[in-house]
Amino acid sequence: MVPKVHAGGLEIMGMGGGGELDNEESSSSGKIIILKMKRFASKGWVRTLKLGREDPRRVIHAFKVGLSLTLVSLLYLLEPLFKGIGQNAIWAVMTVVVVLEFTAGATLCKGLNRGLGTLLAGLLAFLIEYIANASGRVCHALFIGAAVFLIGAASTYMRFFPYIKKNYDYGVVIFLLTFNLITVSSYRVENVLKIAHDRFFTIAIGCGICLLMSLLIFPNWSGEDLHNSTVFKLEGLAYSIQACVHEYFKQHDEHDIEGSIKSSSDHEDPIYQGYKAVLDSKSTDETLALHASWEPRHSRYCYRFPWQQYVKVGAVLRQFGYTVVALHGCLRTEIQTPRSIRALFKDPCIRLAAEVSKVLSELASSVRNRRHCSPEILSDHLHEALQDLNTAIKSHPRLFLGSDDTKAGGQHKKQSKKKTSSSSLSSVKTDSCALQEWKSKRMNYEEAVLSERKSLRPQLSKMAITSLELSEALPFAAFASLLVETVAKLDLVIEEVQQLGRLASFEDFTHEAREDEVVVTCEKPRLDVMHNHLPSHVD
Amino acid sequence: MVPKVHAGGLEIMGMGGGGELDNEESSSSGKIIILKMKRFASKGWVRTLKLGREDPRRVIHAFKVGLSLTLVSLLYLLEPLFKGIGQNAIWAVMTVVVVLEFTAGATLCKGLNRGLGTLLAGLLAFLIEYIANASGRVCHALFIGAAVFLIGAASTYMRFFPYIKKNYDYGVVIFLLTFNLITVSSYRVENVLKIAHDRFFTIAIGCGICLLMSLLIFPNWSGEDLHNSTVFKLEGLAYSIQACVHEYFKQHDEHDIEGSIKSSSDHEDPIYQGYKAVLDSKSTDETLALHASWEPRHSRYCYRFPWQQYVKVGAVLRQFGYTVVALHGCLRTEIQTPRSIRALFKDPCIRLAAEVSKVLSELASSVRNRRHCSPEILSDHLHEALQDLNTAIKSHPRLFLGSDDTKAGGQHKKQSKKKTSSSSLSSVKTDSCALQEWKSKRMNYEEAVLSERKSLRPQLSKMAITSLELSEALPFAAFASLLVETVAKLDLVIEEVQQLGRLASFEDFTHEAREDEVVVTCEKPRLDVMHNHLPSHVD
Repeated sequence: MVPKVHAGGLEIMGMGGGGELDNEESSSSGKIIILKMKRFASKGWVRTLKLGREDPRRVIHAFKVGLSLTLVSLLYLLEPLFKGIGQNAIWAVMTVVVVLEFTAGATLCKGLNRGLGTLLAGLLAFLIEYIANASGRVCHALFIGAAVFLIGAASTYMRFFPYIKKNYDYGVVIFLLTFNLITVSSYRVENVLKIAHDRFFTIAIGCGICLLMSLLIFPNWSGEDLHNSTVFKLEGLAYSIQACVHEYFKQHDEHDIEGSIKSSSDHEDPIYQGYKAVLDSKSTDETLALHASWEPRHSRYCYRFPWQQYVKVGAVLRQFGYTVVALHGCLRTEIQTPRSIRALFKDPCIRLAAEVSKVLSELASSVRNRRHCSPEILSDHLHEALQDLNTAIKSHPRLFLGSDDTKAGGQHKKQSKKKTSSSSLSSVKTDSCALQEWKSKRMNYEEAVLSERKSLRPQLSKMAITSLELSEALPFAAFASLLVETVAKLDLVIEEVQQLGRLASFEDFTHEAREDEVVVTCEKPRLDVMHNHLPSHVD
Repeated sequence: MVPKVHAGGLEIMGMGGGGELDNEESSSSGKIIILKMKRFASKGWVRTLKLGREDPRRVIHAFKVGLSLTLVSLLYLLEPLFKGIGQNAIWAVMTVVVVLEFTAGATLCKGLNRGLGTLLAGLLAFLIEYIANASGRVCHALFIGAAVFLIGAASTYMRFFPYIKKNYDYGVVIFLLTFNLITVSSYRVENVLKIAHDRFFTIAIGCGICLLMSLLIFPNWSGEDLHNSTVFKLEGLAYSIQACVHEYFKQHDEHDIEGSIKSSSDHEDPIYQGYKAVLDSKSTDETLALHASWEPRHSRYCYRFPWQQYVKVGAVLRQFGYTVVALHGCLRTEIQTPRSIRALFKDPCIRLAAEVSKVLSELASSVRNRRHCSPEILSDHLHEALQDLNTAIKSHPRLFLGSDDTKAGGQHKKQSKKKTSSSSLSSVKTDSCALQEWKSKRMNYEEAVLSERKSLRPQLSKMAITSLELSEALPFAAFASLLVETVAKLDLVIEEVQQLGRLASFEDFTHEAREDEVVVTCEKPRLDVMHNHLPSHVD
């Protein structure tokens, strides 16, 4: 006991000795905690408000869920309703919690899966029950055990089939759940028919309320979201491609190379933001399309919602997006074409990009306004812009080596051709003072890069230096070629969007409708409505 | 009644008149139906077997679910166990159906979410119950209704927060479910404490059986899947990049342009198969990493499973993948560099691609065998290959225009420099017979393309023709530049994989271990284990 008392004494002494100090300290630390909590609470409040302001449909959805739950609870709370349904009203409450999703399509998909699963499971459970009833009590238990094992294993295995996984996964789970519920209960409860009937009935009521809420009161359509996300992606790409080309030619004018390096680590890069949504859109598109396929025809625009065509447009846009990524990569590459060479092609490149961007914007506004796209805007200017770039490239031959024509294609020097390039290159390079100037800058940059990275990977910087010795016009050639490639990809995009217009019976194009619309958007596109809420499968 | 009888009479007459014929017909159509059903059944059976053969873990998982369900049913079926737990044993059955997932991480994540949600909901429900009890019967009902509405709306709104959506979505749903269950039941049942206790207890039993099954009996680890999918992706990219470069130089040797067009619509393209898994890996990676983060340390290799680093490696690989897509795009582009120009750079390009592919394979085998990667393989040969390509490009100047050097860089002609290119180009082009030969082929191809598409889009083919007039060496420059770009991206991949090695405490590299491993894999990579089963959130 001695050590304990001793410790106690020490504690008391400590308390007595530093009592006032402790009080002060604790009150000040208490204040700090209160302050921190206040700050945390206000931060949380701001975030909560922001969430709702970004998309007011979220608030509406939350209220809808609350309202549905209250309605369905009345089945249990009100005496007359309760008499009809009884204790099992609680299943209806559970159904509402689980089935009511953000969009009408998702709710329908889940609700119908749940209903179908329950119905099938009930039927199968009866069959099993009918067979089992013929046997004795112990045999009955064994039979139930075997049935539970077999049906459990079989339906779990079934869930691995891609087709079933995609469309009926939830239904299979509910099937398994209901089957087990009824079969296992049948062992102790006499009237299984009543369990099955009640479960099906209450689930039907729950699903009914959910469908009512999601289809009739401020409905959110997956098809609408898919439509808007397609418009958003088209606009994002239109912005990205134009910003990318502007950045490519601005880069050297203002920031030199350091600027491009800085932006390479910057994920808030607006160009990246533009095409980001396109790249990772596959699973979102497919989920939205799946849910949209369950939705009834809900708008006067869509006679039959061509969700598969939206998926196709999404796929083509992803392909387009990969080219934009490669184009964006040209901004970040460690080998850069000298400013003087770039300057030669600045105007035609910017013009071509503007035309591509304009076509994408026109496609976006065509999809947004559900009208066919203008027939002439899709060819003439783009054609001219391509011709311009072509002319510009043809008018500056021998840029592949990037030696003679660096001074704006002015002074042509006699060529020195040797098969072994390292010597030929150095002799040629010394000619051009613009190139030298650029080279010295490059050396500084190289040193900076080296000092930064040498601790991590000495052998890798060696690679970087090697690649620096490559011909300097090569990266520009890649840039120009990728730009031309986007035009080729644009063909496919136009084709799929036109097909979409035909399938969704878009309105005919009229000049009046267009005139105030076609503005080349070089602002950042609006918020992506698609990412507000990914339809979730979670129960 | 007349029409009915008449119809009946007609039917009987028909039966009598054509009885034998009908019998034959019906028996033959019956045979056909039986045959069809047999064929359908055998097809289904083959598919079912294939599903299991692709990944035997699926069969094991199905059996595990069956076994768990049988075990948990015993709680209800066996008299002594039933006495302790009672009617609520059915909750345990439901928990097993809902919680037992394919991988241990997913099961843990769901099980803990379910447990936590139930516990919190129980506590809150008691608080509400305690307050409500003070009021009268009608007030009680109103109070319950208000609580259900508010908690329902608030927790649904909470699910929109990205952080909660990602980690605790299922927990919030279960919280809402349990809260409603207890609160609503409390209106008619006296002893709510017993409901809550039973529900928590049976859910705990269900979760316990699930965790036992998934952690101890043939466990599947999400971390393991993430690890294998990283290896798979590295191998896929190694294969793709090499196959892509081979195809680029083979294309003209064998099939000319038609071959490349054919493959462009072919989604069974092995190159595409190689990088496909990488492109759409974001959501899968993140889900696997999320589940892996719940898993305990399970293997002797991983001291602490660096799932975040795997996600980073995945992101860098996606960036690398986009460059490979662009490279693949060069095979499919409508403007092709003539065979003779390509031939000049065939060997260095193929060598560089082989080196990049070798590095990726080395990284893949390093990750697979959980050892650090060889320090020298990552620099020397790659460095030399880059140097080679550099030399090759430098030794053929003036290819940008693609006019003089088409004949294997042999005869150098005097240059004709004019600012207006269209005239200069045509005069230069007629010199080269190789180019002419190629041009005539191109014209045939153009016509074929035109006739195929003219019905669809007359204005688009005009674009295609314009772009054909661009300098022919331009696409090759893009190809070479992208190839060099892959080397730059490879740097980042190496860096992240090395970081992964440090974080996961890989074994040190030894020469003995490596010697039999480093084989450049130019076969198709194995089956992607990742796609066998995406951890599903569905209940």
